[in-house]
Amino acid sequence: MSYTAPIKDMLFVMKELAGLEHIATLPGFEDANLDTAQAVLEESAKLCGEVLAPLNVEGDRNPSSWKDGVVTATPGFKEAFRQFGEGGWQGVQHPLEYEGQGLPKLIATPCVEMLNASNLSFALCPLLTDGAIEALLTAGTEAQKQTYVPKLISGEWTGTMNLTEPQAGSDLALVRTRAEPQGDGSFKLFGTKIFITWGEHDMAKNIAHLVLARTPNAPEGVKGISLFIVPKFLVNEDGSPGARNDVHCVSIEHKLGIKASPTAVLQFGDHGGAIGHLIGEENRGLEYMFIMMNAARFAVGMQGVGISDRAYQKAVAYAKDRVQSRPVDGSAKQPVAIIQHPDVRRMLATMRGLTEASRALAYVAAAHCDIAHRHANEATRAEHQAIYEYLVPIVKGWSTELSIDVTSLGVQVHGGMGFIEETGAAQYYRDARILPIYEGTTAIQANDLIGRKTVRDGGKVAKSLLAGVAETVEALGAQQGPAFESMKKYLAQGHRSLSAAVDFVVANTKSDPNAVFAGSVPYLKLAGIVLGGWQMARALLVAAAKRDEDPSFYGAKIATAQFYAEHVLTQASALEASIVSAKGGESVLALSEDQF
Amino acid sequence: MSYTAPIKDMLFVMKELAGLEHIATLPGFEDANLDTAQAVLEESAKLCGEVLAPLNVEGDRNPSSWKDGVVTATPGFKEAFRQFGEGGWQGVQHPLEYEGQGLPKLIATPCVEMLNASNLSFALCPLLTDGAIEALLTAGTEAQKQTYVPKLISGEWTGTMNLTEPQAGSDLALVRTRAEPQGDGSFKLFGTKIFITWGEHDMAKNIAHLVLARTPNAPEGVKGISLFIVPKFLVNEDGSPGARNDVHCVSIEHKLGIKASPTAVLQFGDHGGAIGHLIGEENRGLEYMFIMMNAARFAVGMQGVGISDRAYQKAVAYAKDRVQSRPVDGSAKQPVAIIQHPDVRRMLATMRGLTEASRALAYVAAAHCDIAHRHANEATRAEHQAIYEYLVPIVKGWSTELSIDVTSLGVQVHGGMGFIEETGAAQYYRDARILPIYEGTTAIQANDLIGRKTVRDGGKVAKSLLAGVAETVEALGAQQGPAFESMKKYLAQGHRSLSAAVDFVVANTKSDPNAVFAGSVPYLKLAGIVLGGWQMARALLVAAAKRDEDPSFYGAKIATAQFYAEHVLTQASALEASIVSAKGGESVLALSEDQF
Repeated sequence: MSYTAPIKDMLFVMKELAGLEHIATLPGFEDANLDTAQAVLEESAKLCGEVLAPLNVEGDRNPSSWKDGVVTATPGFKEAFRQFGEGGWQGVQHPLEYEGQGLPKLIATPCVEMLNASNLSFALCPLLTDGAIEALLTAGTEAQKQTYVPKLISGEWTGTMNLTEPQAGSDLALVRTRAEPQGDGSFKLFGTKIFITWGEHDMAKNIAHLVLARTPNAPEGVKGISLFIVPKFLVNEDGSPGARNDVHCVSIEHKLGIKASPTAVLQFGDHGGAIGHLIGEENRGLEYMFIMMNAARFAVGMQGVGISDRAYQKAVAYAKDRVQSRPVDGSAKQPVAIIQHPDVRRMLATMRGLTEASRALAYVAAAHCDIAHRHANEATRAEHQAIYEYLVPIVKGWSTELSIDVTSLGVQVHGGMGFIEETGAAQYYRDARILPIYEGTTAIQANDLIGRKTVRDGGKVAKSLLAGVAETVEALGAQQGPAFESMKKYLAQGHRSLSAAVDFVVANTKSDPNAVFAGSVPYLKLAGIVLGGWQMARALLVAAAKRDEDPSFYGAKIATAQFYAEHVLTQASALEASIVSAKGGESVLALSEDQF
Repeated sequence: MSYTAPIKDMLFVMKELAGLEHIATLPGFEDANLDTAQAVLEESAKLCGEVLAPLNVEGDRNPSSWKDGVVTATPGFKEAFRQFGEGGWQGVQHPLEYEGQGLPKLIATPCVEMLNASNLSFALCPLLTDGAIEALLTAGTEAQKQTYVPKLISGEWTGTMNLTEPQAGSDLALVRTRAEPQGDGSFKLFGTKIFITWGEHDMAKNIAHLVLARTPNAPEGVKGISLFIVPKFLVNEDGSPGARNDVHCVSIEHKLGIKASPTAVLQFGDHGGAIGHLIGEENRGLEYMFIMMNAARFAVGMQGVGISDRAYQKAVAYAKDRVQSRPVDGSAKQPVAIIQHPDVRRMLATMRGLTEASRALAYVAAAHCDIAHRHANEATRAEHQAIYEYLVPIVKGWSTELSIDVTSLGVQVHGGMGFIEETGAAQYYRDARILPIYEGTTAIQANDLIGRKTVRDGGKVAKSLLAGVAETVEALGAQQGPAFESMKKYLAQGHRSLSAAVDFVVANTKSDPNAVFAGSVPYLKLAGIVLGGWQMARALLVAAAKRDEDPSFYGAKIATAQFYAEHVLTQASALEASIVSAKGGESVLALSEDQF
């Protein structure tokens, strides 16, 4: 099997770090206990390991193709997508009343991780469909929900997000697709959208395009953007797909990776106008889009975790198999498996530590999201929502940035074979490269983390998380042994560094925005390293207490936590120096444009 | 122009940091003054910018192809190679007596950088030919030199290095290609070699394969390897190519990058035996190969510098052109070029700083090599040879590792466009990925740095370099201003960190080799960051003194040095912690093989 879902590790994180048992006490989640979680994960693992993972290489070699406006998915994808839909996997976290499974995000999240680990290109179609479902559930009319959501959940139809235009990449203020009211409640849309993931394909009977556009006389900038739903086939009274709508795929991109996932250029209205309907209120499109984007950003973070784990698994298998060179300590006269060589082991431990930390942080974030939605107490909901929102840009930005490093190390472990495409390690390296870019680049995540998530509340949420880190440092202090000593030392240092960065950001963003924003990505990475390290420290405490129950599993947790402390958390003070001591961007801004 | 050689920056480094004027005082280098250097660089820049750089994309889209044992280079490459040979570019640093130009390595090195920046795939053919020339000059008979070297220098013929076999990647002890003496001084070779760069092609009339093989009854392991020259066409008495030899290309690899450069599987002796001749003495092949490899490793380091600069230039051009989003400081109400955004500028400054530092360190190393070869005093030669040998694994390992980061940032600066292959940024990212692997992975460089270069002399060379760093820290102390303050602070810290790492390596390699080697790559990176930072500090001192002569150029040097201090040198203490405080590999080795 080319991918085996790490179910045991996932359940450990869900139970011990993300508090699954607490989530199962929330209203509506009474059935979401550990047994349910385990059963769901095992079924998901089967589909991902047996059906989707084997199609991953095929998708790279035989990408989706375009001919005369029709996009044909990689052979095997359509059938796999049918199985995915019929298995109910699109609906894990969506409401029962629209034929979802109504389970917590905490249980859906490992399923999303598996899906992405097994086949990043395939997984993008459900990822975007999820976004469309979220937008409809948030802002759609009851009729819109009833028309679209069950079909999106069943996999009969899929969804897309149409934001980008040639002149408007990350800057939605520049959107100029226009929507003209027809007097009957419908609109006709005209414009070009680019980079539309799964914007056209043959895996489903209909595609619901969620489209940002401007109505006549809308205000300029982001305050004049509305959200429309534009189906590929107009929907008949009985809910079945009817006439072909005027939205057409004129080309798909030739990309570095995720080649099986068609990236479409869509033309709206070249033949009279694409018929669409407003979602929610006029000029509030950006707000709704942010809801979709928050869900999508979290999911892209899971793509980072998933591809990292896939690359890790492949590298471990190769390192155990490949025999080369005698050990440096002279313990054998014959060549040994390369996993015996210290640097190979360092690379694998780095891949493992980063993957585990990013997974743990994401699952913990998912649990906050569940509490934010379901807790009986409003203040508690708000508190957890704020934490979730602080964590989303970190999950997105940090997990995807580190996936570049992890997949690169995966190539390196393979040596020369890693550079040969048939080996497969290079595909992960190519595929991962889009993750820190789409759904908002790392800089955009970092700006969000600074502006909306740190400065707006004066660092309150950040400091509440730091208080949790401090408690864990305290708890570590009571324990003995090298893992605890290293973790205590470097997590305490990480706490000081992140605290200093938060204080710097809060104090200086208004007075010296350029200097602060020049340190925005280092701040995001610092937050990821420290908050991810916090989860590793919490895992260490649990593992030490339970070690006798399963010495190999918990022993590995302890060793991985120590490694993370000594090789990842150690970077915290360097990042602090770049952000704070160096006064953020002074040297960044010292070079003028023409000096570059 | 898609690549413009940074001649001004190159000359600055050559003159101010690498001591070109001193090199020009060495016997035989009397003509190698600044004027000569400038003239050579300008001519090289023309060929690279006008002829080779435009072929780079073509090589990626239309790679070298194999059919029935014949490899055809990308259209345009053959003619470009003819111009390269006729221009004398293969011979810049080779002896006049074999029709080279007899110039210092310090002048050849920027030419090599330009060649690689303009077209990495193309540049590999001269790179390997250089290795063959070095081996022949070191160990060949006078007749062998006369037969081969002038033709290799003129570009009529090319050279290859045949080390790797399917079972013997980095571990040459496992080589089993055999060479049977024929009684007439010749040998017949039988075996399979893989990963042979430019192992077969149509750009030259003949190919001189340098091949590692075992003679009958040779000792096992690396002490039983001999070096042979096996020409594609046997050489007639008059030096012209004669009968086809029994070495054949049975396939070429399908690779992640450097696609125009054919990576051949070569079969020796499938039809009766490939005729070859011994180079030097029997069983000393590894020693000669190390000479070739040292040259090749340095050159691969220059590939890292070159591809980094190319990626930087492309990213800067895009960032100045692409208009998107309003500035974070509110200084404009309209979208601005993205180079105005602090994080884009941070990314560009990172790319620039790393490229400049790795360039400077490599050029300084080249100057040591020149002194080691030409100085009148034997002790001085030996001293500089030792420094050069210490620096080679750093130039190779560090410059190539950072080229992954730099080319990745290059993609990131382009946003979504970076992921589209037509943009071109992705090619650099793919091409660069082989650099930390071939000619010895980074771990192999790091093991060499520890074993042969640090431990063997008890850290003497390392400490002599550290003494130089300390002198520069001292000199910085006399100066005022934020760039000096930051550089002084972080270079001093870097000095402490590297000193501690050297002491740790020297003290513990024998007693605890696994722990030390688990920190080998961090040690190599630390050495690169600190010694590269040393060059940036030296540049800062020169720039501050000369600022008024050329405020923009020297001002940029000052700002880049400050940036490097605050965003790169800051990492030194984190690496020290991973290597030293964490006792190297304790946590790396705490995970057993089956726990991965």
